[in-house]
Amino acid sequence: MSSTSSRYSTIALVGKFDRSDVSEPISQIAAHLLQSGRTVLVAEHTGLDLNLPNASNVEVVSFETIGKRADLAIVVGGDGTLLVSARKLAPYGVPLVGVNRGRLGFLTDLSAATACEAITRLLQGEFSSERRQMLDVRVERAGETVFRGLALNDVVLQKGDAGRMIEFGVHIDNEFVYDQRSDGLIVATPTGSTAYALSANGPIIHPGVGGIALVPLCSHTLTNRPITLPETARIAIRLFAPHVARVHCDGQERFDVQADDQVMIERSRHCLNLLHPPEYSYFAMLREKLRWSEAPRER
Amino acid sequence: MSSTSSRYSTIALVGKFDRSDVSEPISQIAAHLLQSGRTVLVAEHTGLDLNLPNASNVEVVSFETIGKRADLAIVVGGDGTLLVSARKLAPYGVPLVGVNRGRLGFLTDLSAATACEAITRLLQGEFSSERRQMLDVRVERAGETVFRGLALNDVVLQKGDAGRMIEFGVHIDNEFVYDQRSDGLIVATPTGSTAYALSANGPIIHPGVGGIALVPLCSHTLTNRPITLPETARIAIRLFAPHVARVHCDGQERFDVQADDQVMIERSRHCLNLLHPPEYSYFAMLREKLRWSEAPRER
Amino acid sequence: MSSTSSRYSTIALVGKFDRSDVSEPISQIAAHLLQSGRTVLVAEHTGLDLNLPNASNVEVVSFETIGKRADLAIVVGGDGTLLVSARKLAPYGVPLVGVNRGRLGFLTDLSAATACEAITRLLQGEFSSERRQMLDVRVERAGETVFRGLALNDVVLQKGDAGRMIEFGVHIDNEFVYDQRSDGLIVATPTGSTAYALSANGPIIHPGVGGIALVPLCSHTLTNRPITLPETARIAIRLFAPHVARVHCDGQERFDVQADDQVMIERSRHCLNLLHPPEYSYFAMLREKLRWSEAPRER
Amino acid sequence: MSSTSSRYSTIALVGKFDRSDVSEPISQIAAHLLQSGRTVLVAEHTGLDLNLPNASNVEVVSFETIGKRADLAIVVGGDGTLLVSARKLAPYGVPLVGVNRGRLGFLTDLSAATACEAITRLLQGEFSSERRQMLDVRVERAGETVFRGLALNDVVLQKGDAGRMIEFGVHIDNEFVYDQRSDGLIVATPTGSTAYALSANGPIIHPGVGGIALVPLCSHTLTNRPITLPETARIAIRLFAPHVARVHCDGQERFDVQADDQVMIERSRHCLNLLHPPEYSYFAMLREKLRWSEAPRER
Repeated sequence: MSSTSSRYSTIALVGKFDRSDVSEPISQIAAHLLQSGRTVLVAEHTGLDLNLPNASNVEVVSFETIGKRADLAIVVGGDGTLLVSARKLAPYGVPLVGVNRGRLGFLTDLSAATACEAITRLLQGEFSSERRQMLDVRVERAGETVFRGLALNDVVLQKGDAGRMIEFGVHIDNEFVYDQRSDGLIVATPTGSTAYALSANGPIIHPGVGGIALVPLCSHTLTNRPITLPETARIAIRLFAPHVARVHCDGQERFDVQADDQVMIERSRHCLNLLHPPEYSYFAMLREKLRWSEAPRER
Repeated sequence: MSSTSSRYSTIALVGKFDRSDVSEPISQIAAHLLQSGRTVLVAEHTGLDLNLPNASNVEVVSFETIGKRADLAIVVGGDGTLLVSARKLAPYGVPLVGVNRGRLGFLTDLSAATACEAITRLLQGEFSSERRQMLDVRVERAGETVFRGLALNDVVLQKGDAGRMIEFGVHIDNEFVYDQRSDGLIVATPTGSTAYALSANGPIIHPGVGGIALVPLCSHTLTNRPITLPETARIAIRLFAPHVARVHCDGQERFDVQADDQVMIERSRHCLNLLHPPEYSYFAMLREKLRWSEAPRER
Repeated sequence: MSSTSSRYSTIALVGKFDRSDVSEPISQIAAHLLQSGRTVLVAEHTGLDLNLPNASNVEVVSFETIGKRADLAIVVGGDGTLLVSARKLAPYGVPLVGVNRGRLGFLTDLSAATACEAITRLLQGEFSSERRQMLDVRVERAGETVFRGLALNDVVLQKGDAGRMIEFGVHIDNEFVYDQRSDGLIVATPTGSTAYALSANGPIIHPGVGGIALVPLCSHTLTNRPITLPETARIAIRLFAPHVARVHCDGQERFDVQADDQVMIERSRHCLNLLHPPEYSYFAMLREKLRWSEAPRER
Repeated sequence: MSSTSSRYSTIALVGKFDRSDVSEPISQIAAHLLQSGRTVLVAEHTGLDLNLPNASNVEVVSFETIGKRADLAIVVGGDGTLLVSARKLAPYGVPLVGVNRGRLGFLTDLSAATACEAITRLLQGEFSSERRQMLDVRVERAGETVFRGLALNDVVLQKGDAGRMIEFGVHIDNEFVYDQRSDGLIVATPTGSTAYALSANGPIIHPGVGGIALVPLCSHTLTNRPITLPETARIAIRLFAPHVARVHCDGQERFDVQADDQVMIERSRHCLNLLHPPEYSYFAMLREKLRWSEAPRER
């Protein structure tokens, strides 16, 4: 379908930071795209020795440039690389598709071995598309905003250096919910529900559910169980003196939070537009990743 | 406001089955309603010796009659009584409000001690109203529907008599999800997330979230964690031979399931219209019921 | 070593009840033992068409006869078959070794494929031996003992037919511990800690620990967490009226408990003497069974 | 009984560091002890303005001096103060008794309000005594011991600053157990099982059980459940490059662990000798602290 083809005339390639093992799949995909006449942008941090037949159509550029020019970004690496790319590119509305270099990821569902073929089909319009909810976080200190972040998986308030529990109060939509003494609190999207939140005993939330999960980390009060809030919830966490803590976005960006800071978290107006091959299945991915495959009937 | 008053001209009273300790609050509320000129219907199972000043305006009737005639049903008892009433009256669209006879319930938030005053305010329009999602369940055997049920909290497939694990397969929207060996599976609404599902390590789900939770009971596969699905999910559970099991609706209705039966569960077109006093707060109720009150700051 | 050889002159073979798929490994092992001049007893329920070269040394006998005459019992099947055998033979002090017919079991660690070789080594004294703690259970009704049982894994008090929570009180060493409202209570040995108790969120307990675990099933009180008691603990559970329930031993024997019955559980004076091949490792078995093999370093 | 009285002729008082709110109870207890002719030692860090009638029998001394001279140490504060005192004084074999200044602690079971009376009875021999197991920890770096610590509750290896999961390998008694990717690992005594380990979903372990619990913090592998090992277990944890981490003893002492360091943990030869009033009950304390008091029968 020509309209589909023209829709994806400029394509960005993003690799894991400074990892040479993505060099080969990226070179292959780039060559494949150039052959079909596309313009190829390579994210500058990817920093690889690309050996390409037709280098004039390949530009090494910043995420900002990718955001402004690319019709699609192909992310080669693991879920971590896709998380970085999502935070950088979602504000520009660039759709992403992930290529894993080995094991299937929660977010990267094309296999490197068959990526070129899958990408060809994708460029012909054979794909499904999903909008994944993201979170905005803002730290307020004495009335001023001192940090802003964006997250696809989660915003985590966590104890820092000292290794002691922190204490904080949680309000939702300006209503008091609870004071908590714990190692911290994970605020997760459905996408993030299978990441850090899962290891903290949080529930799996299907990406089709509009919700935000609060998952305590080692709460002192045993009844302080995970809760899923409506996606419209505006969450405010106030760190009590004399505690200090950290805020993490997707476990990748970090900001040091001081006593009496307010951490404000709510649904972002940006969504990740994530593309999948037609055979993608969320449940099949869960079975594979969580090893549900030990089907009792096969005993 | 007269329009509000006239909106509630016929009011039903429902008490806990055969429990005399609801007799006094029900008589008081009935007298109070009669004084203001309302017609009072009393659910027949409530079976109490009511001693009322103006008995001509009081009729003892079936749930069906309540459904057809009442503008509002006041349920006096615990959450259990409210669950029965919800399943009986939600199909008629009758709004419910719950009066507890002691401890606050998850669903019954008026206190018997101050019920008359609260009801007066409610009849004047001072209340908030919520639509709580319900579940339809249907058991299919050899192509025929052998059971239909409705649930406000949960539909539970559970091992029966033999005390052994059961095995079943789960499909969602006609897609295979997993085969499971466990004591059973709780399919819960957000309302039910604080009931049985909570004791099975399920997540709390705010009633404002559109979702259905699957919470395994003692799953043999440890990674088989609770999952929240979109409220549109159509869930099909097939019990494998040679197992037999039970289906429970709200822990109150029960049906015996045979091997190869299919249990089909989906969002009901009926919702419970639940009324609350203006000061009602979901989070305050959770704090009270889950004893989050041990606020760490007060130490 | 001749003393070792003579120590095991009469050997019993126990297979899974009425399952023909253990016929071949049992026949092979029997032939192998007869060749080396041993007397072979076959448990009567095993009920197989054994086709053996030297049938005069093979007797089909009851568990009681095995208990009185055998120097060793080789159990071919899964953990379930070993549990039955342990309850039947531990009172006689007969050591057991388990042969699995496919996947490694928690208790059956010889593989059927290499069983003959492993048994030869075992009969030459190449094995390790472990004493596994067992539990005695006694149900008292109006001062009389109405049931006695023995368990290797666990004694479980569980709700029955009605599907509703049960209520009971727990005393330990005549001291009140708690009243509980739940689906039941698992009382598990360290051996049982990796069985049903694990799926109910109980802790793994190494068999070298002297302890008894109490693991609630869906406790209404969320803080009612699993607890490990000293192995000397005498546990008394009183079922409150109007509840009825079931007691299960190893999920295989069952007794119906009435309101006001007392279920008394304590360490048995019988232990299972479980033999393992020299290369057996408890931790390796856990890694295999719990799939810890996904070693993070291999990513 | 005079022998009992003479047994406790020199008594140490330890208060919470720099907290004036223990001044009054400590002064009262000191005056009470001086009246009965005892010598009173006050831990120097307690640093209070004591206003005592007979100051010649009161000495402000170091923990070392208390260890060498005291027959008993009375600790006034919370569980935290008792943990410090236990690590300091257990090596000298000084028995401890804890006085809480408000809410009952897990370890401090005399109430400040009635402490003098309770202490009088204790000095007359009315008490029970318990030996609580402790843990030794040693960090080895390139063959050298770079840290030694002692813990009553737990030794915790935990991710530090960076907020990312750490990776480490665990050996027990020189046998490989697992490699783990997680936020860290709690190694807890039965005493510590109701502290940090409990909030990380660890099991409660009665102090009469000889065991050491391994409780993962947010393990990446969901089947990596808590395990209780025999108390004789020698645990070696090797932190994999490029990770750095922290070791905490009782959440109070801390050491920075580098990649390839080995953290060696085993039962200490020191025990805490903890005294309780005769009416002390472990289960009653659990009921109080975990709020099991919501007895279902009282509904």
